[in-house]
Amino acid sequence: MVRCDILVIHRYRSTDNAVAYVSVPPCDSSQDFGELLETEKGADVVFEVGDETVAAHRCVLAARSPVFAAELFGPMKEGNVAAAGVVRLEDMEMEVFKALLRYAYTSSLSLQGMANDHITCRKILVAADRYGMGRLKLICEEWICECINVDTVVTILALAEQHHCEGPKQACFDFLADPTKLRAVMVTSGFQHLWESCPSLMMELMDM
Amino acid sequence: MVRCDILVIHRYRSTDNAVAYVSVPPCDSSQDFGELLETEKGADVVFEVGDETVAAHRCVLAARSPVFAAELFGPMKEGNVAAAGVVRLEDMEMEVFKALLRYAYTSSLSLQGMANDHITCRKILVAADRYGMGRLKLICEEWICECINVDTVVTILALAEQHHCEGPKQACFDFLADPTKLRAVMVTSGFQHLWESCPSLMMELMDM
Repeated sequence: MVRCDILVIHRYRSTDNAVAYVSVPPCDSSQDFGELLETEKGADVVFEVGDETVAAHRCVLAARSPVFAAELFGPMKEGNVAAAGVVRLEDMEMEVFKALLRYAYTSSLSLQGMANDHITCRKILVAADRYGMGRLKLICEEWICECINVDTVVTILALAEQHHCEGPKQACFDFLADPTKLRAVMVTSGFQHLWESCPSLMMELMDM
Repeated sequence: MVRCDILVIHRYRSTDNAVAYVSVPPCDSSQDFGELLETEKGADVVFEVGDETVAAHRCVLAARSPVFAAELFGPMKEGNVAAAGVVRLEDMEMEVFKALLRYAYTSSLSLQGMANDHITCRKILVAADRYGMGRLKLICEEWICECINVDTVVTILALAEQHHCEGPKQACFDFLADPTKLRAVMVTSGFQHLWESCPSLMMELMDM
C-alpha cells in the first residue's frame, strides 16, 4: 500500500514569507476507497454480469447512486435477491460495470487499457444514466465530444438524443453545420436510419 | 439533497479558444459520503461514547483507518463485540469522535461551532494518532501551529513530543527562541512540570 500522507516538511518558507511547519498532502480518500474496492474487505454484495462476478459494498454504492440506494436499501429492493447479497445484472458488460464501480469508489474514470475506449465510453455513459450518476455521465459526455467525426457523429447524435446529452448533441450539430461534412455523413446508412427513427431530431438539424 | 452535478454549460469558449460543450463539476464524493454518514443508510456498527451513540459503516472506517480495519475486520477484532455491531469507546469524547468520523467520510475537518476549538483540535489530533489517520493528524498539527502563544506553548510542546509531531515541536522551539517569550513561559507551572516529565525535551531546547 502506497500512502502519501506522511510527508512533513519543516520550516519551509511559503510565498507569503510565513514559516510553514506542516505540509498537508492532497486528499487521499480516492486511493483509500479504491483499495477498499480492490481488497473487497467487508464486501456485502456480489454482482453477476454474464458469467463473471464482482464484489462491492452496498453503502458505498447507495451513497453514490440514487438508483443503487433504491435497489439495495429502498422499497424497490427485490427482497430475496438483495438479502442473499447477489444481484444479477442484465444488459451490462463487466468491463463497463467495473469502470462504473471504480468511479463510484474513486470519483475518477480511466479508459486506459480498454480496447476501443471510444465505444466503451459510450457504454459507460449509458450505464451512468441508468444508475443516476450525473457527474460520471458528464465526464463521458465530455469525452465523446472529442470523438466526433464523419464515422461517429450519427451514433453519437442518436445516443445524445436518447440519453438527453445536450452538450454532445450541440457538438454534433456544430460538426454537421459544415456542408462538406454533412454531405459525407448524409450518404451513410446510419444517417438514413436516424432520419427514419428520429424525425424530430432531423427537423432540428434542418432548422439550423 | 443538494446536488451540483447537473450543471451543463454549452458552447462557452475556454481560454484556449476551443469550444467546450460540457462542463464537469468538481468531485462530489465528499458530499455523497457525508450524506451517507448523516442518513446512516445501511450502517452496520454503533459506537458508544459515554452515554451517547453514533452509527457508522464498517467498510468506510476500514478504508480510512488501518486501526479500524484491524479492529472491525482483522484478527484483532473482538469477536462478540464486533459481531454484535456495538463498539464501546473509552477515553473519547463524542464531539471529538464525530469530527473524526466526519473526516473519515468527507476528508474534511470543520471546527466550526465547537466551543474552544483549539483544545478540541488537540483532542482530534490525539484521536487521529490513535486511529492511524495520518492526514487528519497533519491537518490538526497545521492548525495548532497557529495557536502557539505564551499560554499554550507548553501544552502544545508536550503534545507534540508525545505524538511525534515534528512540525509543531519545531514551531514551539522557534517561539521559545525569543528570550522575552521564553522568560514569560519559564515561570509557569506547566513549564516546570514539563521540565520534570520530559528532561530530554528540555535538553533539546537548551541545545538550541
